[in-house]
Amino acid sequence: ARTHRIAVIPGDGIGKETTPEGLRVLDAAARRFGFDLKLTHYDWSCETYTKTGRMMPEDGLDQLKDSDSVFLGAVGWPGVPDHTSLWGLLIPIRRGFDQYVSLRPCKLLPGVSTPLANRTPAEIDFYVVRENTEGEYSSIGGTMFPGTDREFVSQQSVLTRTGTDRIIKYAFELAMKRPRKKVTSATKSNGITFTMPYWDDRFAEMAKNYPEVKTDQFHIDILCAHFVQHPDWFDVVVGSNLFGDILSDLGPAVAGSIGVAASANINPEKEFPSMFEPVHGSAPDIAGRFVANPIGQIWSGAMMLDHLGEAEAAKAITTAIEKLLAEGGPRTRDLGGQAGTLDVGKAIAEAV
Amino acid sequence: ARTHRIAVIPGDGIGKETTPEGLRVLDAAARRFGFDLKLTHYDWSCETYTKTGRMMPEDGLDQLKDSDSVFLGAVGWPGVPDHTSLWGLLIPIRRGFDQYVSLRPCKLLPGVSTPLANRTPAEIDFYVVRENTEGEYSSIGGTMFPGTDREFVSQQSVLTRTGTDRIIKYAFELAMKRPRKKVTSATKSNGITFTMPYWDDRFAEMAKNYPEVKTDQFHIDILCAHFVQHPDWFDVVVGSNLFGDILSDLGPAVAGSIGVAASANINPEKEFPSMFEPVHGSAPDIAGRFVANPIGQIWSGAMMLDHLGEAEAAKAITTAIEKLLAEGGPRTRDLGGQAGTLDVGKAIAEAV
Ligand SMILES: CC(C)[C@H](C(=O)O)[C@@H](O)C(=O)O
Ligand SMILES: CC(C)[C@H](C(=O)O)[C@@H](O)C(=O)O
Repeated sequence: ARTHRIAVIPGDGIGKETTPEGLRVLDAAARRFGFDLKLTHYDWSCETYTKTGRMMPEDGLDQLKDSDSVFLGAVGWPGVPDHTSLWGLLIPIRRGFDQYVSLRPCKLLPGVSTPLANRTPAEIDFYVVRENTEGEYSSIGGTMFPGTDREFVSQQSVLTRTGTDRIIKYAFELAMKRPRKKVTSATKSNGITFTMPYWDDRFAEMAKNYPEVKTDQFHIDILCAHFVQHPDWFDVVVGSNLFGDILSDLGPAVAGSIGVAASANINPEKEFPSMFEPVHGSAPDIAGRFVANPIGQIWSGAMMLDHLGEAEAAKAITTAIEKLLAEGGPRTRDLGGQAGTLDVGKAIAEAV
Repeated sequence: ARTHRIAVIPGDGIGKETTPEGLRVLDAAARRFGFDLKLTHYDWSCETYTKTGRMMPEDGLDQLKDSDSVFLGAVGWPGVPDHTSLWGLLIPIRRGFDQYVSLRPCKLLPGVSTPLANRTPAEIDFYVVRENTEGEYSSIGGTMFPGTDREFVSQQSVLTRTGTDRIIKYAFELAMKRPRKKVTSATKSNGITFTMPYWDDRFAEMAKNYPEVKTDQFHIDILCAHFVQHPDWFDVVVGSNLFGDILSDLGPAVAGSIGVAASANINPEKEFPSMFEPVHGSAPDIAGRFVANPIGQIWSGAMMLDHLGEAEAAKAITTAIEKLLAEGGPRTRDLGGQAGTLDVGKAIAEAV
């Protein structure tokens, strides 16, 4: 049988509760579709940090690098500053493994209510493709004249041709596989006049290679407005690291699914493992009570299987999620139900 | 009688149709509240550019600088690139006159429908305060290795202590005048690790001077999501140039008022004239037909009077707008009516 090696990092808070449910469903899919999962568990987390002074061991990336994928829960816990926890675990994996695509589905699921009035599932169904390694999240910057009235800080945004072209290409390739075949570019070339006009040029250049794909572009300010006013306009939306970050929270928010949304950090060439994680965080306020919704984690597992070539199994999982929501299966509190984390995990595993 | 000197720049497209309605209402307010308006008209626009090669004359700022305020319609027309029209007229006025506050009300008006489900006017009523001179819109940047595979572009974001402190202070001062007294800071210090932690520090520092004001802060990604999910959380929201730009389009969008929203570009010290303009653009698709909604322009006029010390007159205008919308007065097509630009302008002027 085909074997996939998965590094499992539950991380912090509800990550420890949702990851086992994700694995439960993956295991059901493996049995049904005839492949093997070889799991290796890593307890890297803020707890580890408190004990050892590091979020992961110095050779952490080395330990992960022979796995086919990383399956992550959530990172972050009160008392450990974000720049320590995120930049000690999440960001080094994204960058170290050149997971240059962050892919996030924005989909109104049947039976889930959206904050928007009068929208049906067919009207909100698109992907945000986010550049995940460079742009506004740069490591170049600093302070001058600290502590004085002349003080200023500066930070560079950097767009490389390599980094820009490959993310835009990924968006076009994804659109080619979808019925509507449309790519929207997020820009701000009317205000940010060095980096963003370059983004526009590279987008126009790449578009020439895909004559079948329809394109448009909006400045990020009005694009955010359109997400709210016209979510039905979008199919694949591509943006820089920061713009993609914003749109991939706003998209699930308009779809009412920010609590159940999934995300993939992908190295498309498979030179390195890719990483799959729910969009939600570690949720300290509800952690430890097994009331968290595991759907984001389970959906991330489906994206992982898709990446590993198990498209049929992936589809079975997303179908099971949609059925459970549409047909009034067990729901956690965030969706107005009474069920616990395990009830939902078991119901989806069974359906698969 | 008190006299206010107003420089009027209708600009392009529907700006030429909405500005006269704005002036009609201002004139009615002047007569009722006993002050004089001394208007000077400037035809600076994309048409000027096509004739003269410049959006405004070389000494444009000099011509404006003795007015008390600038009343602007809209800038931009097909055939003239944005970086020419905007950076030739709008941006030089904002920067040349150190209009460092961009202030935009986000308010669900009675009788206007929002894209959100089940929201009432009392639940959406906040201000976005945007830094308007520095930050991500910087003039430092460039390209290396152009035309090769090693090509990259870079652009600096710059936050000065002066620029950061004064905008945050403005937000706190504004909150002090409002019943809820709350300021929300837009940040992204978990990803943009030089400039944004500095923003957070300066925000925390300023907050100490305003113990009565409640504060919170969100990363821009989840803040955009909260605008959609919980618009009722916000009172005054302060952000950098880019974050403020995004939030001040998203805010009016969730309030359903992007077509009628107003904005002010303010130099609070009154060393230079401030500028008042609707949020909408020149709308080439409907220009020339007098069907555009003049409410954004009229509302901007109210903000101008407020800035000029005519608070009562300003209030009379916003009350007239709200009454017209609530009581089913004439409406333009964007709000589902049949009325023209002039009908709405006249009705509001009469009510004032
Ligand atoms: C036209 C553009 C440069 C401008 C900006 O980003 O400042 C506009 O979006 C605005 O918000 O007034
Ligand atoms: C935690 C933070 C650094 C991260 C990001 O901005 O990349 C998060 O918002 C995300 O989208 O995964």
